[in-house]
Amino acid sequence: MKHRIALIGFGNVGQGLAEILLNKEKELKKEYGYEYSVVGISDVAWGTAYNPDGLDIPSLLADVKEKQKFSKDAKNWDSLKLIKESNANVVCELAFTNLETGDPAISHCKAAFETGKHVVTSNKGPAALAYRELKEAADKKGLKFLIEGTVMSGTPVINLMEGPLAGCTISAARGIVNGTTNYILTQMEGGMSYGDALKKAQELGYAEADPTGDVEGYDARGKVTILANVVMGTSLKISDVACQGITKITQEDIATAKAENCRWKLIGSVKKEGEKIIASVAPEKLPLTHPLAGVMGATNAITFSTDLLGDVSIVGPGAGRTQTGFSILTDLLHIHRNG
Amino acid sequence: MKHRIALIGFGNVGQGLAEILLNKEKELKKEYGYEYSVVGISDVAWGTAYNPDGLDIPSLLADVKEKQKFSKDAKNWDSLKLIKESNANVVCELAFTNLETGDPAISHCKAAFETGKHVVTSNKGPAALAYRELKEAADKKGLKFLIEGTVMSGTPVINLMEGPLAGCTISAARGIVNGTTNYILTQMEGGMSYGDALKKAQELGYAEADPTGDVEGYDARGKVTILANVVMGTSLKISDVACQGITKITQEDIATAKAENCRWKLIGSVKKEGEKIIASVAPEKLPLTHPLAGVMGATNAITFSTDLLGDVSIVGPGAGRTQTGFSILTDLLHIHRNG
Repeated sequence: MKHRIALIGFGNVGQGLAEILLNKEKELKKEYGYEYSVVGISDVAWGTAYNPDGLDIPSLLADVKEKQKFSKDAKNWDSLKLIKESNANVVCELAFTNLETGDPAISHCKAAFETGKHVVTSNKGPAALAYRELKEAADKKGLKFLIEGTVMSGTPVINLMEGPLAGCTISAARGIVNGTTNYILTQMEGGMSYGDALKKAQELGYAEADPTGDVEGYDARGKVTILANVVMGTSLKISDVACQGITKITQEDIATAKAENCRWKLIGSVKKEGEKIIASVAPEKLPLTHPLAGVMGATNAITFSTDLLGDVSIVGPGAGRTQTGFSILTDLLHIHRNG
Repeated sequence: MKHRIALIGFGNVGQGLAEILLNKEKELKKEYGYEYSVVGISDVAWGTAYNPDGLDIPSLLADVKEKQKFSKDAKNWDSLKLIKESNANVVCELAFTNLETGDPAISHCKAAFETGKHVVTSNKGPAALAYRELKEAADKKGLKFLIEGTVMSGTPVINLMEGPLAGCTISAARGIVNGTTNYILTQMEGGMSYGDALKKAQELGYAEADPTGDVEGYDARGKVTILANVVMGTSLKISDVACQGITKITQEDIATAKAENCRWKLIGSVKKEGEKIIASVAPEKLPLTHPLAGVMGATNAITFSTDLLGDVSIVGPGAGRTQTGFSILTDLLHIHRNG
C-alpha cells in the first residue's frame, strides 16, 4: 500500500523529512517495500498545498526558498481543514512546540484520530501534556500515535524501549536530554563565561533568541515528562517534575568540579520508588568516570536501568534538521511494518 | 497462538532463559500477548526431555541442580532428533560456540529450517561462519533466523539496526565487543599485571581456563564478522578480518598511554570504503575524550556511523546468564510480534 502523508508544519523538520523521503525514495521501496506520496502540507508561514494524487515536493521546496509561499496546488485551507478533509492516512505533526497549552498540535492530533489517520510527531507539546488521552484516542480507532522525535530527535529512545528492550522492566531513565545546555556547559569547561557560551550557542543555532526554555531546564522537563508517561505508564504532569536549569552555575563551580575530577551535567531523571514515580531536572556534579560525564557538546544520552540487562545507554544527536526528520521516517516505517 | 519452544543447550544461557520465562510468564502474556510452552530440552550433559504438551521447567531446573540429569519426560533422543521430531515451532540454539566448524550448531539450525521451525541463537558459530546461507534457508521457508545474542548479549545491537535504525545507511560499526579483555585492560590501568588481571578475570568467570579465544581477539573477530555480514550485507569470512589481541600490551604501554591522557581499548571495527568492506580487531590507544574510552570493566559498546543521524552508540552488558537469556527472549518476542 502507498502511504499518503500530510505534513503539518514545513520548517526545518518538515523540510528535512521531505528531503530524506526524496533522496531515499528508491531505497525505501527496495529495502522495506515502503511507498509514499505527500498529499498535503500546511504551514503558518507558507500556506497550504494539497493534491490527493501527491504533491510535487521539489517544486514546493523551491517555492519556500524562492517565494516564501506555496504556489503549485495551493489551497485556501487551514491546517485543520487539511487534516480532516485530505485523503492522507498519516498526519505528521511538525508545528511549533507549545509546552503551556500544547496547541495547536493537540487539536491537530485529535482531528487526525477523529478522521481515522495515524499521527507521527516530534512535537513535545502533545506528548508531554496529553500523551495518555491521545494514545487512548488512537488505540480506540486502531491507529498509531508515535513520538520518537520528541526525545533525542531520531536517536532511538521510545522505539528502543518499546522494540528491542520489550520484555525488560525499566525502573529508571536518566540522561542528558538537552543539547543546548550540554553545549554551554562544555564551552564553560573550556574556559568561556556563561554569557559567551550562550552567545556562541545562539550563533550556531543551538539556542533560540530567548534561551529560557533551554537554560531553565523546561525543554528537558518536557522530555522527562514524556519518558515518565511512556516508559513508566504513569500520568505525570509537567508541573510534577522538579526543575532547575543551569543559569546558576558559575565558572567557579566548573573549576571546583574540575579540581575534584568531576563535571557538571544537566540531568533529567525519572525513577520508580515502590509505587511512586519521581522525576526531576537538575544540574549534577558527576565523577569523570560516570558514563554520562563523557557525553560532550550537543550530544544527548539516556541510561535505562533494567531488570534483566542492568544499565543500557544510548548516545546520539538530540536535535538537527535531518536527525529529527529521520525520527519521523522511523515512525512512518514502523506504521508500514506493523500497521 | 502459544509458541512451542525447544532448547538445544541448557547451560547458563538456557537456564537463564528458562528462569526469565518462568518469572515473567504472566507479564509477557499481559503486556505482549505472548504465551509459550517449552516442549523440549536437549543438553550434552543432562540428556533430553520432551513433552509435546509442555515440560515442567521448575522440575527440570531442579533435576539439573540435584541429579545432573533430566528425569521427568526424559527421552533417549539426541538433539537432532528433538529438533526434527518435536512439535516445537521455534528452536533456541544455545549449545557451545565452535568458531572453527560452527558445528553442531549449524547442523541444528539447518535441521530446524528443514522441518519448518524458526531459529533463535546466541551461538556465534552459525552467525559468524554461515550467516548468509542460513538466512537464505530461513527466508526460503518464511522462517526467522534471529541472532541478537551473538553480539553484546541482550544489549540491542542487531535488533537496534534492523528496527529503530532502519532507514539509516550504516557505513561503519566500531566498538568494544569483548568484556573479558576490556576488564583485563581496566584492571591493568588500575596497576595490576596482565597475569594477575587475567587470573582475576578467570576467578570472576569472565575468562575461561584457556583464555586464548578472548585475549587473542578471536571472540571479538567472530562478532566483527557477524556485524559485517548482518549490517553491511556482505559475505566476509572470519579469516578476512585482521586480528590482534591484547597479549602484547605491557604495563609500560598502559603507563605511557595514561601520561598522554589516553587509554588502550581492544577495538573491533568494520567499515565500508567504496565497495570494499574493511574489518579488523586490534588494540587502539584512544584519547580519554573519545566516547569509547569511558567504557570500563566488562561493559561493551558499539558506535554506528550513519548517514542521517551521524554517530549513535549503544552501551551495555556483553555477557551474563540473564543478559544472554534476555537476548533469546527479545528474539522470541520479535517472532511473536512480526511472525
